[in-house]
Amino acid sequence: MKPVQLYTAGTPNGQKVSIMLEEIKAVNPSFEYETHAIDMGKNQQKEDWFLKMNPNGRIPTILDPNNTATHAEGFPVMESLAIMLYLEKKYDDEHVFSWPSSDPKADNFRNQVLQWCSWQMAGQGPMQGQANHFRMQATGDSKNVVPYGIKRYHDETVRLYQVLEAGLEGRDYLVGDGKGKYSLADMLTFPWALWYRFAGIKHEEVGPNVKAWIDRIKARPAVQKGLRVPTESELLKNLDDPNWMPPMPEI
Amino acid sequence: MKPVQLYTAGTPNGQKVSIMLEEIKAVNPSFEYETHAIDMGKNQQKEDWFLKMNPNGRIPTILDPNNTATHAEGFPVMESLAIMLYLEKKYDDEHVFSWPSSDPKADNFRNQVLQWCSWQMAGQGPMQGQANHFRMQATGDSKNVVPYGIKRYHDETVRLYQVLEAGLEGRDYLVGDGKGKYSLADMLTFPWALWYRFAGIKHEEVGPNVKAWIDRIKARPAVQKGLRVPTESELLKNLDDPNWMPPMPEI
Repeated sequence: MKPVQLYTAGTPNGQKVSIMLEEIKAVNPSFEYETHAIDMGKNQQKEDWFLKMNPNGRIPTILDPNNTATHAEGFPVMESLAIMLYLEKKYDDEHVFSWPSSDPKADNFRNQVLQWCSWQMAGQGPMQGQANHFRMQATGDSKNVVPYGIKRYHDETVRLYQVLEAGLEGRDYLVGDGKGKYSLADMLTFPWALWYRFAGIKHEEVGPNVKAWIDRIKARPAVQKGLRVPTESELLKNLDDPNWMPPMPEI
Repeated sequence: MKPVQLYTAGTPNGQKVSIMLEEIKAVNPSFEYETHAIDMGKNQQKEDWFLKMNPNGRIPTILDPNNTATHAEGFPVMESLAIMLYLEKKYDDEHVFSWPSSDPKADNFRNQVLQWCSWQMAGQGPMQGQANHFRMQATGDSKNVVPYGIKRYHDETVRLYQVLEAGLEGRDYLVGDGKGKYSLADMLTFPWALWYRFAGIKHEEVGPNVKAWIDRIKARPAVQKGLRVPTESELLKNLDDPNWMPPMPEI
């Protein structure tokens, strides 16, 4: 098996995929991947060689040289959800992170994973991302938009975390019988949840179920490794202080 | 077979699912669905009976009374992408809108559908939705944010339509051999594309491939029916005038 090629940067969307790659490695020692750090400051993700794999020009992106059914050089996959569904189908054939078809509830559980993943892709990710933008990057001429943008996206992100809180009531993981089973729904949603403070959301604005779930997932060895791809962020250790908030830039 | 229950309103996200339900009906005459119009002005989607099906309180949502594997009253599905993948798996067993597993390229094509659908859910939908908001709804106290918000989300939405334009180069549909095959990738992306003018995007800002693809999909009888669920919008006929733009509210 050739190593899967990962093109990424140290963002929550990148960490979704590096966490999953580490989880697969942990259960399948013959699985390998190679990381290519993309310098977004230099817009490497908009260069022609990259756009051939991902016409949207974003990280994360993978290329699987083991799959030549449609592309002689290997199969390129864009968008974190599509990448994770691809890796699950191709490299989790033991269903460690999903449900075997022999389980009569498998189709429903797998669809519930898709429901939460879609909620993450269409809601938590974009809305928290806009909250980040208005709090951390909307500077200069945009000064007078900051209060409106911060409030709009902060409030919507807090609402989304209340939905997540309810989804985790009485459960360890989002989908599955009883307290649930660790699946793509958790893996995909966790990295944005870990970094909620960049969106201006305070520790006390996040419910106890979500916080316990973040700690549960963060404790996994593969998650600890995946969070450090492509490099370790100094900011990780700040998360141990519940009162820490990323400073806002001066505007 | 009992009718699938659809909870929807006349928005692009609702139209994704009503179009797919009509497409399934067109190829499977025994398939039925019943529509429940949700009055979002009255916040019906936030009422307890609705939140039991969809904890996020959004349309579209379906309940399938034919599937009782995990829910005695039928299986509830939230999020347009998860709904469409559910309907495809359960009610398109002939693979009219996808690829049979006997096709050696099927896995890759199906993943490419997921790539475009993820791009729609995480990019086109949320960004065009924010462009709509800043152009059409951000009024009153938010007056001074309108120029920044309009520009930010207009520009990102135009960029996303350039990605779609490139994806359709030399093709009739987004995924598949040759000129492609009409699939969930097209069905899910089309309704937002149809209404790009609400985001302040002008006819001349959208490329010829996207326009021809919109016309191609719009001509399908099932799409014409699906666009009129739960009711027909007066605005549909305005789309025939390339110069028409929805008026902005006074602020």
